[in-house]
Amino acid sequence: MIPTIEWRGKHVRMIDQRRLPQSIEWHTCRTYIDVIKAIESMVIRGAPAIGIAAAMGLALGAGSIKMKSGFKKRFDEMSGRMIKARPTAVNLRWAVERMGLVAEKMAVMPLEAIQKELKEESQRILDEDIEINKKIGEYGQHVVPRQAAILTHCNAGALATGGYGTALGVIRAAHEIGKKVRVFADETRPWLQGLRLTAFELMQEGIEVTVIADSAAGYLMRQKKADLVITGADRIAANGDVANKIGTYQLAVLARENVIPFYVAAPLSTIDLSIKSGDMIPVEERNGNEILYFGRRMIGPKGVKAFNPAFDVTPCKYVSAIITEKGLVKAPYRAGIKRVFAK
Amino acid sequence: MIPTIEWRGKHVRMIDQRRLPQSIEWHTCRTYIDVIKAIESMVIRGAPAIGIAAAMGLALGAGSIKMKSGFKKRFDEMSGRMIKARPTAVNLRWAVERMGLVAEKMAVMPLEAIQKELKEESQRILDEDIEINKKIGEYGQHVVPRQAAILTHCNAGALATGGYGTALGVIRAAHEIGKKVRVFADETRPWLQGLRLTAFELMQEGIEVTVIADSAAGYLMRQKKADLVITGADRIAANGDVANKIGTYQLAVLARENVIPFYVAAPLSTIDLSIKSGDMIPVEERNGNEILYFGRRMIGPKGVKAFNPAFDVTPCKYVSAIITEKGLVKAPYRAGIKRVFAK
Repeated sequence: MIPTIEWRGKHVRMIDQRRLPQSIEWHTCRTYIDVIKAIESMVIRGAPAIGIAAAMGLALGAGSIKMKSGFKKRFDEMSGRMIKARPTAVNLRWAVERMGLVAEKMAVMPLEAIQKELKEESQRILDEDIEINKKIGEYGQHVVPRQAAILTHCNAGALATGGYGTALGVIRAAHEIGKKVRVFADETRPWLQGLRLTAFELMQEGIEVTVIADSAAGYLMRQKKADLVITGADRIAANGDVANKIGTYQLAVLARENVIPFYVAAPLSTIDLSIKSGDMIPVEERNGNEILYFGRRMIGPKGVKAFNPAFDVTPCKYVSAIITEKGLVKAPYRAGIKRVFAK
Repeated sequence: MIPTIEWRGKHVRMIDQRRLPQSIEWHTCRTYIDVIKAIESMVIRGAPAIGIAAAMGLALGAGSIKMKSGFKKRFDEMSGRMIKARPTAVNLRWAVERMGLVAEKMAVMPLEAIQKELKEESQRILDEDIEINKKIGEYGQHVVPRQAAILTHCNAGALATGGYGTALGVIRAAHEIGKKVRVFADETRPWLQGLRLTAFELMQEGIEVTVIADSAAGYLMRQKKADLVITGADRIAANGDVANKIGTYQLAVLARENVIPFYVAAPLSTIDLSIKSGDMIPVEERNGNEILYFGRRMIGPKGVKAFNPAFDVTPCKYVSAIITEKGLVKAPYRAGIKRVFAK
């Protein structure tokens, strides 16, 4: 599997996810601003992956600071800008805060030691993320029947994380222990992460995958062609409401209507205890041109407007369980989430 | 407005809907086979429009028959092939049967008279369709509040009919009498009829339109940004179940979940009394490449499969009313549909 993001000496490089799967291009970031731009422009996407990118970006930023005096102020500025790269996925803020704690803890040390430690911390965030995904997979595979057709949305795979994946981690784990899984991947407009990334990852793994238009998910469920739905998450509120890629809410409603379990796989770093309910999660609206253009080609009539929310919020009542690295959380979610954090 | 389809002397021409709105190209059909190919390949689409095309195609076919002996056999053969061009929209069969009745009635007449009458009948089907749409609009506009945000799917407009449209006919009629309507158009993958055709028609009419990804429809409804949903239909069973563009079922479920009325606008020729319930409506599966390719460019990973049902069936329990040229039909639908046919 291609690494989603990695240190290459003094630079960070990431696979350009806008070009996959037709071409495999590395995108090198030399400054923290390069990383912010890469996150904003979807070179890298997926809540855990942008958390890792943010950490590495701050390590790059810290590395560029020449004098110890004023380090904290400059680092905090960089952190403030990094956090704004995308508003919905809370992993970004989580990673920035974790890097901030390291910077604080190291404050008395020489500049070079702080810089080295921040770089190492960013690598630890990456390494831990892969371990966490594997644990999510271990817990999650139990919800997958021996033979199962699984519907997923967007890409919550290796490319959305440090590696292995959350929703796709569960699918991988089920496949690895010999369960017969077949996957239906929503193409996931407008960026087509399902068609381009999820299908690509699963084919590399030898897992059977069939792409469908986002509009066909309900039909699929009504035809009893999907046994369960699993998605990732960009932010989960303290009450269990889930912000995830636009279209997730629809899937959850349709799953309930068709009596199909709907699971969310996510690390604890995606759970935002500071937010009481999903209504308070900021939903990013991206440029309408993402819908109107294909590459440089305008598809719609001249001057047409588009509304392009990148995420939606699924009320927890539609969620069968949240699969974390510390086990499954089920309703009532507020209590369950508290418990899992106390583990 | 550009005519969807028309007679030009001995030939039938139609606007090539695959090229809209970027280019306005006429597609000329000289034989009934040309018409079948145009229907199959989506040069023309929309249940009422392909009914009209089928009628004109049979008139072309009849016109090519050189001898009266064997006319009926040859005409029936052509009819059989025409009916198979696309399986879901019943208007195709309806139009073919109507042309068959004319051929039968005219059987004793000279060949040229039969041919002339069939051509005229096809023009009558077109003219009547526009009148029917206007009546649907008149009845339907009553369900539209004075100020309304309306969500629609695919294109059930002038381009899907002889002119004016069914779902868009209702919107046009509401606009014409001065109601303040704003439309959200689902882009409607894979063919993007919403983005390319519905947005185009509404902008020409001066009706405010905003395109959304199909996945954003649920979010829109949950945010209370849509007051009602209106779609067209490809076939309605005797119990009121509605086959329409893939994704319609999802909209209907989401509308009910969010307490938003869901209307279907369709002429009586779309109602198939011979089919008891929606489960018996054949759902066309089209080539997966419609999802995997954009123009000639493959988007997904090499060798990936796609499942591409072109329609789905919405159980009548989700439908607030069916708007026909003879008024609104509401639940219980079986009785209501019988009544409207008796009018």
